[in-house]
Amino acid sequence: MHALAIQAGAQGPQLVANQPIPKPDTGDVLIRPLRMGICATDMELAKGYMSFEGVLGHEFVGIVEKAGSAKGRKWVGKRVVGTINCVCGGCDMCRAGLREHCRKRDVLGIDRRDGCFAEYFTLPVQNLIEVPDNLDDDHAVFTEPLAAAYQILRQLAIEGRPYITVLGDGRLGLLCAQVTTQLNATVRLVGKHPTKMAMCEKWGVKHRLLKEVGLRADQDIVIDCTGSPDGINTAMQMVRPRGTIVMKTTVAPGLPGHGPKDLAPLVINEISLIGSRCGPFPEALAALAEGQIDVLSLISRRAKLTDGVEAMRSANKSDVIKVLLEP
Amino acid sequence: MHALAIQAGAQGPQLVANQPIPKPDTGDVLIRPLRMGICATDMELAKGYMSFEGVLGHEFVGIVEKAGSAKGRKWVGKRVVGTINCVCGGCDMCRAGLREHCRKRDVLGIDRRDGCFAEYFTLPVQNLIEVPDNLDDDHAVFTEPLAAAYQILRQLAIEGRPYITVLGDGRLGLLCAQVTTQLNATVRLVGKHPTKMAMCEKWGVKHRLLKEVGLRADQDIVIDCTGSPDGINTAMQMVRPRGTIVMKTTVAPGLPGHGPKDLAPLVINEISLIGSRCGPFPEALAALAEGQIDVLSLISRRAKLTDGVEAMRSANKSDVIKVLLEP
Repeated sequence: MHALAIQAGAQGPQLVANQPIPKPDTGDVLIRPLRMGICATDMELAKGYMSFEGVLGHEFVGIVEKAGSAKGRKWVGKRVVGTINCVCGGCDMCRAGLREHCRKRDVLGIDRRDGCFAEYFTLPVQNLIEVPDNLDDDHAVFTEPLAAAYQILRQLAIEGRPYITVLGDGRLGLLCAQVTTQLNATVRLVGKHPTKMAMCEKWGVKHRLLKEVGLRADQDIVIDCTGSPDGINTAMQMVRPRGTIVMKTTVAPGLPGHGPKDLAPLVINEISLIGSRCGPFPEALAALAEGQIDVLSLISRRAKLTDGVEAMRSANKSDVIKVLLEP
Repeated sequence: MHALAIQAGAQGPQLVANQPIPKPDTGDVLIRPLRMGICATDMELAKGYMSFEGVLGHEFVGIVEKAGSAKGRKWVGKRVVGTINCVCGGCDMCRAGLREHCRKRDVLGIDRRDGCFAEYFTLPVQNLIEVPDNLDDDHAVFTEPLAAAYQILRQLAIEGRPYITVLGDGRLGLLCAQVTTQLNATVRLVGKHPTKMAMCEKWGVKHRLLKEVGLRADQDIVIDCTGSPDGINTAMQMVRPRGTIVMKTTVAPGLPGHGPKDLAPLVINEISLIGSRCGPFPEALAALAEGQIDVLSLISRRAKLTDGVEAMRSANKSDVIKVLLEP
């Protein structure tokens, strides 16, 4: 089968034509993806983040084709999305209810597990969530990144009516802006690309160009969705003393001269910095099913899996938001 | 009068012999310090942190000698300690109850205000707290750093019986270790200096050498008191997923190759990083008056103010904990 993979010794992702179709282990199922989403993390992995080798991809909606054991048989033929952390269930984190932080986990297309940018891939049964019939593939493929946006709502304590800045107008920033406007808060998106931010108009979300906003340490909450190692520095200048920065950006270590050079402002201003990663799929699926989140506007391009290398390259362009892959 | 100051263009602190005795403004008092404490921040200021110029020093106990106006007259003759943030009372932070984050503040011996390493200095009346008669000068001079340790208790939500590591066996680490053992928690101090950590024995505080502990991401809370730009990196390896790092370290920006190069672990492990600075003086004074905190063991050396340059140099030595200055 075809797969889009990072291979040992190779520079960046490559299309592999003769990848063997994986056999699902006991407890796993084999999935045939219908849509796959390209994420900033995929681009970072291609640059060396996590030292990942293997098939890329962790955003998908697909059909369960085969089960590795009787346990998964009832899933065959169903249309599913799936959480990406494949966990042991027995370590201290799993037992503490923090399964997504399992000590022994592998992560779909990110950490020691082949991902979904292929004709077939495997995932544990316990990771599957069925997609409602009324939710089409173009919406369902956004479940994983939208869940990551909903994670913020679980981590923030909202008091009064805080001022929130979503920093970054990329894929995740545009989702976070839509999600945080559900809060009792004054939300604005701050980014660099007028064309991307223009879609905030139809959502009723305030938006400003970074070069036009003052860095006045007056925001109660800043959500760093820049995907840049320098985003934290801007966030530290925007957030008020005793305010909160939610950090969504994971990037390959910055080049010399980039990244957080000086964390003293965090201490002086007693800022709370909250790392935020994967989120709740059921909430994201429900929001998509209820039409609360506009994801179709985010789709800039569609490409065949076999054109994946070029599709990933295009996803890096500043005017491109979401690129979807199809089999 | 004599003062220990950082002067424009000079390298490091210098003893100034002909510093004019300051005149207290309306609302201020003139204080004659009896004891002064040298803090890691003083050493960082000497290295260029905050680009500070002026008289150093922010830890003191002293006698009020003169008032700038009728408002301060009742304080004359009293023995006092004092908070270090001199605030406006009118900005958004002051009005929000976050006076120590006043937008217009100056800070005693740290930011645009001459400090207490002098024969006399000034401070606003509203910063003063009277020292109880039964608390001697050697104890009272620890009020400011001890308050900074108590600040941690205000910022942490303690649930269950968490594992807490105090990282760093310097002045602040040894205070934080004593303060956090008051919590329903399992506390250990991790440092590099056996002689400093030995005094944990008499306090009943567990202690381990850094090179002997595993960096196993198993601590619920890590308090970075290292005073080193690399402390955050060790803390990120020690804290468990969804755990908390309290950051007390403020340092001059690190040299190339030092400091937090990569914050991705904060995001992946969804760690909360809480900056922590000045704390509640009343709690610290009460704890000292009740004999809850052993500070006398921390005093490594006493020196005259006029020997302050050499005293500051000695405070940098690895076997020295607290150096006190006397007039």
